[in-house]
Amino acid sequence: MRPFIHPDFLLDTPQARTLYHEYAEPCPVIDYHCHLSPKEIAENRPFANITQAWLGGDHYKWRAMRTVGVPERLITGDADDHAKFLAWCDTVPKLLRNPLYHWSHLELARVFGIADLLLSPATAETVWARANARLAEPGNGPRDILLRLGVRLVCTTDDPDDDLAEHRAQNARGDGLTMRPAWRPGRYLALQALDRPFAETLAHLRARHAFFHDNGCRLSDYSVESFAEPCAEAEAAKIHEAARAGKALSPAERTAYAAWMLDWFARLDAETGWVRQLHIGALRNPNAAMFAKLGPDTGFDAIADFPYAEPLAAHLSALAADGALPRTILYNLNPKDTTMLAVLCGSFQDGTPGGRVNLGPAWWFLDQMDGIEENLRAVSALGCLAQFPGMLTDSRSVLSVPRHEYFRRILCRMLGRDLAGGFLPDDLPAVGAMVRAIAFGNPNALFA
Amino acid sequence: MRPFIHPDFLLDTPQARTLYHEYAEPCPVIDYHCHLSPKEIAENRPFANITQAWLGGDHYKWRAMRTVGVPERLITGDADDHAKFLAWCDTVPKLLRNPLYHWSHLELARVFGIADLLLSPATAETVWARANARLAEPGNGPRDILLRLGVRLVCTTDDPDDDLAEHRAQNARGDGLTMRPAWRPGRYLALQALDRPFAETLAHLRARHAFFHDNGCRLSDYSVESFAEPCAEAEAAKIHEAARAGKALSPAERTAYAAWMLDWFARLDAETGWVRQLHIGALRNPNAAMFAKLGPDTGFDAIADFPYAEPLAAHLSALAADGALPRTILYNLNPKDTTMLAVLCGSFQDGTPGGRVNLGPAWWFLDQMDGIEENLRAVSALGCLAQFPGMLTDSRSVLSVPRHEYFRRILCRMLGRDLAGGFLPDDLPAVGAMVRAIAFGNPNALFA
Amino acid sequence: MRPFIHPDFLLDTPQARTLYHEYAEPCPVIDYHCHLSPKEIAENRPFANITQAWLGGDHYKWRAMRTVGVPERLITGDADDHAKFLAWCDTVPKLLRNPLYHWSHLELARVFGIADLLLSPATAETVWARANARLAEPGNGPRDILLRLGVRLVCTTDDPDDDLAEHRAQNARGDGLTMRPAWRPGRYLALQALDRPFAETLAHLRARHAFFHDNGCRLSDYSVESFAEPCAEAEAAKIHEAARAGKALSPAERTAYAAWMLDWFARLDAETGWVRQLHIGALRNPNAAMFAKLGPDTGFDAIADFPYAEPLAAHLSALAADGALPRTILYNLNPKDTTMLAVLCGSFQDGTPGGRVNLGPAWWFLDQMDGIEENLRAVSALGCLAQFPGMLTDSRSVLSVPRHEYFRRILCRMLGRDLAGGFLPDDLPAVGAMVRAIAFGNPNALFA
Repeated sequence: MRPFIHPDFLLDTPQARTLYHEYAEPCPVIDYHCHLSPKEIAENRPFANITQAWLGGDHYKWRAMRTVGVPERLITGDADDHAKFLAWCDTVPKLLRNPLYHWSHLELARVFGIADLLLSPATAETVWARANARLAEPGNGPRDILLRLGVRLVCTTDDPDDDLAEHRAQNARGDGLTMRPAWRPGRYLALQALDRPFAETLAHLRARHAFFHDNGCRLSDYSVESFAEPCAEAEAAKIHEAARAGKALSPAERTAYAAWMLDWFARLDAETGWVRQLHIGALRNPNAAMFAKLGPDTGFDAIADFPYAEPLAAHLSALAADGALPRTILYNLNPKDTTMLAVLCGSFQDGTPGGRVNLGPAWWFLDQMDGIEENLRAVSALGCLAQFPGMLTDSRSVLSVPRHEYFRRILCRMLGRDLAGGFLPDDLPAVGAMVRAIAFGNPNALFA
Repeated sequence: MRPFIHPDFLLDTPQARTLYHEYAEPCPVIDYHCHLSPKEIAENRPFANITQAWLGGDHYKWRAMRTVGVPERLITGDADDHAKFLAWCDTVPKLLRNPLYHWSHLELARVFGIADLLLSPATAETVWARANARLAEPGNGPRDILLRLGVRLVCTTDDPDDDLAEHRAQNARGDGLTMRPAWRPGRYLALQALDRPFAETLAHLRARHAFFHDNGCRLSDYSVESFAEPCAEAEAAKIHEAARAGKALSPAERTAYAAWMLDWFARLDAETGWVRQLHIGALRNPNAAMFAKLGPDTGFDAIADFPYAEPLAAHLSALAADGALPRTILYNLNPKDTTMLAVLCGSFQDGTPGGRVNLGPAWWFLDQMDGIEENLRAVSALGCLAQFPGMLTDSRSVLSVPRHEYFRRILCRMLGRDLAGGFLPDDLPAVGAMVRAIAFGNPNALFA
Repeated sequence: MRPFIHPDFLLDTPQARTLYHEYAEPCPVIDYHCHLSPKEIAENRPFANITQAWLGGDHYKWRAMRTVGVPERLITGDADDHAKFLAWCDTVPKLLRNPLYHWSHLELARVFGIADLLLSPATAETVWARANARLAEPGNGPRDILLRLGVRLVCTTDDPDDDLAEHRAQNARGDGLTMRPAWRPGRYLALQALDRPFAETLAHLRARHAFFHDNGCRLSDYSVESFAEPCAEAEAAKIHEAARAGKALSPAERTAYAAWMLDWFARLDAETGWVRQLHIGALRNPNAAMFAKLGPDTGFDAIADFPYAEPLAAHLSALAADGALPRTILYNLNPKDTTMLAVLCGSFQDGTPGGRVNLGPAWWFLDQMDGIEENLRAVSALGCLAQFPGMLTDSRSVLSVPRHEYFRRILCRMLGRDLAGGFLPDDLPAVGAMVRAIAFGNPNALFA
């Protein structure tokens, strides 16, 4: 019987199969936004077992396990790795139609070479043994896995005060994997970096920005959880000093300060020619008790639903008016905003080849079969699919690289159906060139 | 020629046909949320004619008739039953692609045994005669119809002050149909039950809640038409007494009071282990003149579009922090909120088997072919389809039971396509078990 | 090889082909909402070249060119027409999956008779030569093109102070093309028409409304960019006089004034039996620098995302309560609102044949393959597809008429799939009659 993950998985037209196998599959992987640990990549220390490699830090899986009734002890608690793995194997068969079902089997096939069985309680011990044996072989450290899966460039997400030593070490290695940092000054936007007075903070950030640039950074990242009119610079300074003095700040003060900083950072990014990412609309840590217990990024985040077309447009407009709008990639977490954002991009295009403002790939909860296709449809109908900036994993685990393959299959499936239905002209090389640009050419031009 | 409603209606793959006929179709029906009259079920009085059975109280049909140009006299007015039926037959052929077209023909086939013709002015008299003849035969009262269509459990929607006599009578009958009440204290949330002072009202509600529990209630229901931070208890008491004194209240006071009560009711539901339903986002009675003329539930309601992710999350978080979050089923009326809600559920999962917070089936205006599929897709991609709590009619008419069949066919169609496309592993028994769980096992575990 | 635009373009079932070729294709075109220049139609002056005909004023194309990297000089700048055409030919192959790709090739085929090649840099000179030769032949003026493409009625969009001379001239011509004005008093809503005091302004508008009616106007159009409770009439008068006196007004004053005027205009439209259009949710001119440079309608607009179900419902309710709700067609620009609006229509139906309030076709950014189908699905499931008011171009160019063909093909494709899948009864003549009503019968009844 054909295995579940077979060469033509998801490819339901002859055109899709040609597009995938001839154009998409051979392309190297550029993972320009992720949360991989630079240290893990630089050190390349082998994983102790599949639980360490596959379940540690993966809040998507934790969330799914909580959903289907697994107790916390077997998720983030003190149960041993084998028990946690069994709990995951118990979970997977309950996730039919969830992206984790597809991802898990793709990852088993591509990372562990296990494509002949489905994960379940019945196969758990076999998988535990085979996967651990594989991880014990040489050449299965985190960096090895990235290289084996075709990754040529990875952009991590870094605090402005990071020394970037691992990035330098990796890039000195010359093994074919470039690791670039990305600038994520979230602590500074959130008034959590208060060592210095306001003006000194800005000077410090400017120096760190230059340091990042010297160390290969070409990309920044900002999480935008609400939008407001920025305050004046003097007001921002006042809020900063009030925070340093330990005074309580109102939510409005915090938001206005963050808005001023967002504008300030954008101008810095524009000066250096970086690409800027805005991740808009997460509702972080809505479950107060579990946040107190487990902290952030443990699988409890959600999606906000505030309107923001007008303030976002005003933000972009202020920058554009000063010639200070950096190339920007927008990501929305709430799908109600996809069309609005895809259209807003078009309002700030200015003849920059590849686009001044683009919609990025389906983010986080939307990174699944339907979400990816809806994102691509919006980009197609309201922007320019051919200059889509490409896929990324946004992941904390090197095992997530097959999400690129998943994306490429879905892209080729969509285009294959269009070709079969006559909605695209019958010109496979032209469509294939677009596939190649999305899979590799566009992000390579932006980030390599 | 094959009739329109044939055995494989909507089932467009071999896999869908197997899933439906072998797994879904044999399952009994659990209708855990509806607005059926307990009296009508307990009394089982035969219907005088098809208009009484089919058009009386069905505001979906009334709305459609107004839309296509039928005058109010033939809808809710003083026209006779035969004329009203003819007006409906005139309407139906204009409703191609509307769920009422499918529902009506399913209902004709399943309730009246009329599957060989399409409803139209040309067939109206034939249907009038055949349907009325059927209704005049013994065994065609409201309860008979429920039993014949496979309903084994029905949960009505009841005022806290209802005596539940009909529920006791029905359950004493032992005819295979269990009727449970559901607790819907809408009057209390809306400051419309002001017989008692605040503290006495709470004591009264607590006693009624226990009474409902003793009479088999396991389910509550709250309509949430806006969200706000709850006021403090003392403030709620003050608002309550002001309302009793006939003082005018501001919308903000009413909303804060309702929010406090919603929290209070949730804690009561959690104490007794009930499942709680939140129906969010109706815009009720927007047409003031028609509301004045015909009252509520006459086909004039609409969909609100306010943002509410943050206050809903805060509501759930406050309860969860106190271990007082009851099992909750969320329903959204505005499809822009489906993804947001499906994700928010995941933020409050805590290892409860079957899920602490789940998205319910597509509600009201969304209960149609596209709406059902979008709802199931969101649950699949963002939660756990296998533990979906199952379908319900939300109807005022026993003739609506075939909506369960409609839902099951759409579910099997979706899964059949997934199997045919290789998006699900080729394991029909596993997928069939999921179908059975959704159709029967899950709601049976929750409500039987 | 079959050309890209072949007779069965988009028609992927036998049923779709029959529906299109036998029912839709023969129907004349009624373009009841567009921004064509009455002067251009009345004068029928030949186009100098394809750039003048195809790129002048078409902000959809300008936007796409900016997106793919074309400098402004080649878009709206001082480059010559040939260079601008080459820039467009360079753009088109980058627009695979964008509606402009389909529109452009449909327009080449239908307007210029060029169906044997795809637009690209390689074919640019050929197309330039052939298209210009065609335009130089007699019978290829703007009005000729409308007539040749089957347009029998066009409703332009006009300022209340327009003298409508071109409309009278055209209608006196008796050439088979009726040109009606539509009343668009946007300047008056926006406090930009301040020649007269408030009361005189209203009297003037009432007189102009009558003048428009006498000149064949049956349709009005209002762009609604925010909703608010209307102020009282006295307050509106005060705001009006303040504006005349050059005083600064707050956004709230402007919005409340516009809301009062919208209500006042609606009552006027109801008195005269006109159909009223509300275009809701554009975010106009968000790019301040480009607005300052190029002015409005140059391809920089976007989509707003404010909630408005409640104020819109209140607006309709106030009118309905006074029997002063004109027949109204609602258009949303943000697809998150499609379902909400489709449902709200149903709350104000009152037995008017064809519907008192209807959702119009997918507007502007939503006027593309996916957007059209989503709009039709919402109307189907939540309203009455059979009384859909029909397609329109909303365009500034006579070359856009094939958007009607595009819409019809998408409609027939959707219905063909329904028939093939058994979701509609196997009654092609009935479904065909619905196609004909949507393509011609319904708008003809409303506007001819």
